[in-house]
Amino acid sequence: AGNSAAGKEKAAACMACHGEAGKSSAPVYPNLAGQQQDYLEAALHAYKSGDRSAGQAAIMSGYASELSDQDIQDLAAWYAAQKP
Amino acid sequence: AGNSAAGKEKAAACMACHGEAGKSSAPVYPNLAGQQQDYLEAALHAYKSGDRSAGQAAIMSGYASELSDQDIQDLAAWYAAQKP
Repeated sequence: AGNSAAGKEKAAACMACHGEAGKSSAPVYPNLAGQQQDYLEAALHAYKSGDRSAGQAAIMSGYASELSDQDIQDLAAWYAAQKP
Repeated sequence: AGNSAAGKEKAAACMACHGEAGKSSAPVYPNLAGQQQDYLEAALHAYKSGDRSAGQAAIMSGYASELSDQDIQDLAAWYAAQKP
């Protein structure tokens, strides 16, 4: 299962686009705060595997390719727990 | 530009999974309420074009393939305007 505190530590690279706690910095980037945890995990796996290829997917695939399954669970737990 | 009221009308098919006003009915489905409008448009175009192929993408591509550019703008306007 994901660890929200660990996820916060791992989210440093995410903040430029997705905000300090999941409120995005520009309209092309999705808000993540309060998003469904399972969906966030699925989305990160899809970016990692190359199953998303439009929009900002090239950037996201670059980041996601570095993430372990545990990293993905932790990041999803962190963002799901933030207030939208 | 998207018309939120028109988007609400067009969202009837979305509600089973994404909720009456964008709060999803199960953890695999993303919340859409208050999501960034530009991101929502980009995501719908990606499903329509087949640039998303994992998770629930097959279902979403089926729905999105029926949407015009105006439909996509209207739906994005509707969900972006809902309270998260």
